[in-house]
Amino acid sequence: MTQIVPVILCGGSGTRLWPRSRAARPKPFLPLVGGTTLFAATVARCSADAGFAPPVVVTGAAHLPHVEQQLAATPGAAIIVEPAARNTAAAIALAALRLPRDAVMLVCPSDHHIGDRAAFTAAARSAAALAGEGWLVSLGIEAKTPETGFGYLKRGEPIGASGFRVARFIEKPDGDRARGFIAEGGYFWNGGIFAFRVEDFLAELAAHRPAILDAVGKAVAGGREDGPRFHPDAGPFAAVESESVDYAVMENTARAAMVPADMAWSDIGNWPAVREARPRDAAGNATAGRVELVDCRNVLVDSDGPRVSVIGLDNIIVVVDSDEVLVTSAAGAQKVGKLQGAVNQ
Amino acid sequence: MTQIVPVILCGGSGTRLWPRSRAARPKPFLPLVGGTTLFAATVARCSADAGFAPPVVVTGAAHLPHVEQQLAATPGAAIIVEPAARNTAAAIALAALRLPRDAVMLVCPSDHHIGDRAAFTAAARSAAALAGEGWLVSLGIEAKTPETGFGYLKRGEPIGASGFRVARFIEKPDGDRARGFIAEGGYFWNGGIFAFRVEDFLAELAAHRPAILDAVGKAVAGGREDGPRFHPDAGPFAAVESESVDYAVMENTARAAMVPADMAWSDIGNWPAVREARPRDAAGNATAGRVELVDCRNVLVDSDGPRVSVIGLDNIIVVVDSDEVLVTSAAGAQKVGKLQGAVNQ
Repeated sequence: MTQIVPVILCGGSGTRLWPRSRAARPKPFLPLVGGTTLFAATVARCSADAGFAPPVVVTGAAHLPHVEQQLAATPGAAIIVEPAARNTAAAIALAALRLPRDAVMLVCPSDHHIGDRAAFTAAARSAAALAGEGWLVSLGIEAKTPETGFGYLKRGEPIGASGFRVARFIEKPDGDRARGFIAEGGYFWNGGIFAFRVEDFLAELAAHRPAILDAVGKAVAGGREDGPRFHPDAGPFAAVESESVDYAVMENTARAAMVPADMAWSDIGNWPAVREARPRDAAGNATAGRVELVDCRNVLVDSDGPRVSVIGLDNIIVVVDSDEVLVTSAAGAQKVGKLQGAVNQ
Repeated sequence: MTQIVPVILCGGSGTRLWPRSRAARPKPFLPLVGGTTLFAATVARCSADAGFAPPVVVTGAAHLPHVEQQLAATPGAAIIVEPAARNTAAAIALAALRLPRDAVMLVCPSDHHIGDRAAFTAAARSAAALAGEGWLVSLGIEAKTPETGFGYLKRGEPIGASGFRVARFIEKPDGDRARGFIAEGGYFWNGGIFAFRVEDFLAELAAHRPAILDAVGKAVAGGREDGPRFHPDAGPFAAVESESVDYAVMENTARAAMVPADMAWSDIGNWPAVREARPRDAAGNATAGRVELVDCRNVLVDSDGPRVSVIGLDNIIVVVDSDEVLVTSAAGAQKVGKLQGAVNQ
C-alpha cells in the first residue's frame, strides 16, 4: 500500500485561548499541553518513525515563520502557503493537486491534542486502508460526553474490520439532542481528521464543488516554487469559495466512511479544554507557573511570570500573560474571544 | 472647653490586604478608598478646620518616613516613635504622658475609613464633652449587620444628651450571637475610637495596670526630643506588657461611656471591606485600573498595571500588584494574610 501523506492544516487564531494565544503567537504554536506545541506534536504524531511519508503543511503567510522553525527537523516536509484563508475544502484541494493521484492523504488539524498516540496511529492506518479502497474516511471520536461544540457522525453499516459507513452527519446539536446521542450510542464527534485517496477526493470535489476545484486548479497552475515552499497564485485563489470539507464533500459523497478512534482527543477549543488535557491534582486543579492554591477545586491557573494566589474558588480559570490577566468561570470561557483584549489585537 | 487633641495610632501591617499592602507599603499609607490614603484621611478628619488641636501621631520607626511625608502640611503635629510595638494601652499612655493633664485626647486608628465626616465630627465632639466630665468614652459604631470580626458594646443608661453608659463589653461573638445582638438592638461595634481626659486615663491605668504606666513613665522620662519627634527610651519600653486599651482600661473602669456614631465606618479589614467602601456600579462591581467585566456581579478588581478581564463571576476579588496576582472568593479573603506571599515578605 502507498505511504500515508500527512496533510497538516495550520490556520486560525484561537482567540478563545487569549491572552496566551495572540495574533503574533497563535494557538498551534503554544505549548498548551505537555511542554510541546500542538503543531510540533501533530508533526511528531505523523512522523516517519510512525510510518508516514513526509508531511505537506498548508498554512498562511502569518504562520509561516513559526511553521518553518518547527519543521526544521522534519526532512522532506513541503509547505503550501495559502495566499488567503479559504477554509478546509480549498486547503485540502491545494495539497491534493500537489500530490500523486494514488497517494493517500491523512488530513490533520494542527491545533488539537491527542493523548493516545498509539490509538491515533492504529485508527489512521485503518482509515488509510479504507481510503485506499475508495472511501472518504473520517476519524470518528468516541463521544463520551454530550458536547454541543462539535458536529457528530452517526455510525452506519460496518465496512471491513474496523470501519463503518457514515449513516448521517449532524451539525452542532443542542444539549438535549447531544444527551440523546450519548444515550442512544453509535454517535461520534467529527474531529476534522480525514483519510482520502487524492484521486477520489478530487473526483468528489469535481462532482459537488466544481468551482472550488477549478479556481484552486488555476491557483496551483499559476503558482511558484521557492525551496520547500509552494506559493499558489493569489489571484485565482482569492476567488475560491470559503467552505469546509464537511459541507463541500463529506455530506455530499455517497462514499463517506468512518473509523472510530478512542485516542484522548481534544480540540483544545477553550481554557476548560486545556484544563482537561493537563495533569490535574486530586482536587482537579491544574497549574503552570508560580501558583499557590488554598481551598480550590477544578481550578486552572497558568502564569507566565507573576505569582498567582487563589483562595476558595471552584471551577475557574486564571491566565496571566504579560500585560493581560484573564479570570473566568468555566462557562464564561466561551466568551473569551469577544473580550476587548482578544478582539483588538 | 479644652481643644480636642487627636492621638493618631499608626501601626500594624494589614497583611489581609496583601498584595497591595506590603511590608514596605503598609495599609495606612495606601489610597484604598477615594484616592487618599487612610492615614491622610484620618489626619484631615481631625484637622484644625474641624476644630481640633494639632495631632500627636504614635508610630514605629518603620512607618516614620511615610508618616513624616504625609504630615508635611500639618503644622504643629507631634510624632512619638515607639521603640517597639506594645499595643494600644502603651501607645495611648505615651501620648498621655506628653500632654497637659487637662487635655482631652481623641484616640483614632489611622487605618479605618469613615465615609460621613460630619457625623464623625459631631460624635467626636459629644464624646469629648463627656470625657471632659470624667467619662472614658468609646465611639460606638451602629451595628447594622452581624459582623463577627469586631468586639461589641452594649448600650446602658443614658448620660446627657447623646451619651450612654456602657452596660457591657463583648469580645468578638460567633454568628448566632451577633445575629441575636442585631435582633435585640442596643449593640454597637467597638471601632477603637476613644475620648479620654488625660488625667482620667492615667488614673484608670494606674488603678488597673500600674506596671504599664510605670514602665511607660520611665520610657518617657528617659526619652529624647528630635524636632517634632519624641523617642521614648527603648529599654524600659521593651518591658511594657502588650495589651489593648480595651482590656487594660475600658473593661475595668467604672466610668466607661459611649456615644453612638452612624458615620459610614469601616475598618477596611479585608478586601471585601474595601469593596464595600468604594463606589460600585449597578451590579455591585467596583474596579480600579484597566478592567473589563462581562456577566459579573459584586466583583472587586484592582490592578496597578495589567488589564484584567473577568467573565461570569460573582462575589470575587482580583488584585494585581506588580509580581503578585490574588484571586479569592469574598469568604476566602479572610485567609489572605496566611498566603506564602503575605507571610514571606
